[in-house]
Amino acid sequence: MMDQLKNGALCGVKILDLTRVLAGPVCTMMLADMGADVIKIEIPGKGDDSRAFSPFQNGESAYFMNLNRNKKGITLNMKAPEGKKVFLEMVKKADMVVENFRPGVMDRFGFGYEELKKINPGIIYGAVSGFGHTGPYSQRPGYDAIGQAMSGLMSTTGWPETIGTRIGTPMADYLAGQSAAIALLAALHYREKTGEGQKVDIGLMDAGIASMQVIQPYYLVEGRLPQRIGNRYESNYPTDGFPTKDGQIMVSAANDKLWRAMCRAMGREDLEISEKTATNKERLQNWQWIREQIINWCGDMPTAEAVEALLEGGVPAAPINNIEQVVNDPHTKAREMFVETEHPKAGKFTMTGSQLKLSRTPVTYRTPAPALGQDNEAVYGEWVNMTPEEIAAYKEKGVF
Amino acid sequence: MMDQLKNGALCGVKILDLTRVLAGPVCTMMLADMGADVIKIEIPGKGDDSRAFSPFQNGESAYFMNLNRNKKGITLNMKAPEGKKVFLEMVKKADMVVENFRPGVMDRFGFGYEELKKINPGIIYGAVSGFGHTGPYSQRPGYDAIGQAMSGLMSTTGWPETIGTRIGTPMADYLAGQSAAIALLAALHYREKTGEGQKVDIGLMDAGIASMQVIQPYYLVEGRLPQRIGNRYESNYPTDGFPTKDGQIMVSAANDKLWRAMCRAMGREDLEISEKTATNKERLQNWQWIREQIINWCGDMPTAEAVEALLEGGVPAAPINNIEQVVNDPHTKAREMFVETEHPKAGKFTMTGSQLKLSRTPVTYRTPAPALGQDNEAVYGEWVNMTPEEIAAYKEKGVF
Repeated sequence: MMDQLKNGALCGVKILDLTRVLAGPVCTMMLADMGADVIKIEIPGKGDDSRAFSPFQNGESAYFMNLNRNKKGITLNMKAPEGKKVFLEMVKKADMVVENFRPGVMDRFGFGYEELKKINPGIIYGAVSGFGHTGPYSQRPGYDAIGQAMSGLMSTTGWPETIGTRIGTPMADYLAGQSAAIALLAALHYREKTGEGQKVDIGLMDAGIASMQVIQPYYLVEGRLPQRIGNRYESNYPTDGFPTKDGQIMVSAANDKLWRAMCRAMGREDLEISEKTATNKERLQNWQWIREQIINWCGDMPTAEAVEALLEGGVPAAPINNIEQVVNDPHTKAREMFVETEHPKAGKFTMTGSQLKLSRTPVTYRTPAPALGQDNEAVYGEWVNMTPEEIAAYKEKGVF
Repeated sequence: MMDQLKNGALCGVKILDLTRVLAGPVCTMMLADMGADVIKIEIPGKGDDSRAFSPFQNGESAYFMNLNRNKKGITLNMKAPEGKKVFLEMVKKADMVVENFRPGVMDRFGFGYEELKKINPGIIYGAVSGFGHTGPYSQRPGYDAIGQAMSGLMSTTGWPETIGTRIGTPMADYLAGQSAAIALLAALHYREKTGEGQKVDIGLMDAGIASMQVIQPYYLVEGRLPQRIGNRYESNYPTDGFPTKDGQIMVSAANDKLWRAMCRAMGREDLEISEKTATNKERLQNWQWIREQIINWCGDMPTAEAVEALLEGGVPAAPINNIEQVVNDPHTKAREMFVETEHPKAGKFTMTGSQLKLSRTPVTYRTPAPALGQDNEAVYGEWVNMTPEEIAAYKEKGVF
């Protein structure tokens, strides 16, 4: 039980992690941040493709270091008969196996869920793929860009004059990774109540679709397609972005009360009584004119001053921050969203912190992302009782 | 234990749900979809603001019906002394309390985590807010648009000629709701091991920041700001979107092998041996020229034909779907991402399905979103042993 208290909420949960690149690794990263014992299994001599993804710090991939902190690293050749045997031995002791291969790959290794559950009925098997393990597109390659395109996410992002627009971070991967973590933890709860494991099957396309739940009814109920309207909202005005002297602000004066507060904050009490802006209906009709009035007010004002005036007046407002502004913001510092760590090769390295804030079992940043195979001795010793000599022999043979 | 099997992985988990609108409700929706007993608590006579959000079907909000399926609905005046007492009685029997008020509101009700844990040390308290419960911006209003702006998400989305661009679905709300579900389920695991509850504190801004983990290193490591580059990737070419005769396609030929496959799929074997496209480095330098070659190929071709040719050649490709195309796609049907249900007032209603696919305990759509206070008798009877007469008297007094 003391061990439970040491490393977080999931301390003691044993996870075999076959994931690569992003959607899978971000799932197991969150579980590892919360204390789970995640064993990252990589191909001998090669490792996760993302070890070669830029940017680099002293030759180490920041991409890889971010996503694989708190994980132990071992190498295993799953095509070698000895490798298969070792893996299946480890499955007996694991709580979860997580992978993000294309559907069918694990079956060809002999490691599909149906096989694994024969040797460990309680195993929880997590799969993340582009389209999930069922349905006609199951075998298609699934990259983030493909998930964003096919789910409809791109179609409602952008401007009237642009085509459907990709979100500037691999959002389909993130949504899928988070969805996998949710389903795996629910399955863990169920396993603890019943002893029964199961398979979790998350698709990037599904995950993107689920995030559009409040947009799809415009088509499903009203039969019309939401258009790309930039930063405005369809449902109210002014929720919109506006240029300032030195940047841009986002404002959300989403109802009559907030609109009147905004008029006062801008020193435009005349707009409060204008027929053009009386209710949301009129404001939606006259949005272009209202937009001009707002730009007249803030267009030559520093962003910070405009945001402060609006917030003081009780109007939801924010700068449209770039990454430099986010990283150096006092709030993100207070929330520990960027964390200085030490990596044996990269040196001082600033990672993105976890958004998962738990009071009694806060996430911890215990170990940097592993070098390829660095934990072979410790893990194979503990999990399958191999001696250093046996491990060295397997390394020689290309099994580890 | 039979009950465990009936309604999903979280069957038996009791959740008092004070959330409104989106970020909180989507969290408790996912938990309810997986079988948790979610009691949605609303203000008497008024209810969740989102009951009034368009679009409507027979007067019922599709927004509300989507997000509140599988939940029971009760009304409670938390400002009335009797209401406070009833709530605190219910907290004694609950596993979780989830809310998305502005920080401090629950404290003023006398329902802050510190108070609730005095009467139930095992209670898991989930809070979702714009900026979290700590840090200098904690008291600022937190809407999705504000979270998207401040987290940096907008700054990397869009086109060279546009300003930072809002994602066309309330993504900060979704990311925060998912993050809350992850942390709450980890806390539930911990509670089952130790008996100890805790507080989960999720901020929209934090959740947005976490989703940009693979973008921030460009600034953190290299000191440069990622620009808005539309649908291209910085790291390889061609991952990009292209116009077709009747729409747009997204392609991700992210490495040499895929690029060569793409040349063959386009019938442009000459490009395979062109110095302009030899490696990713050259392709990034000459992306505009390559883009022209690709548009020459697909610009007059139907989307379906272009996608099929690329997929057959082994190149990741997809249509940039609009919502109509997504809803009517055979794959989304096979994955049950749109679910026909029956609502007592709205009638036949198509909801967005859950992306959480669990093999042994699949999500279920058991009940439509509740009418305001529809479960007062059942819930208050079961949780605090009130008789129908007592409940009617409290309703009369405005407590329920």
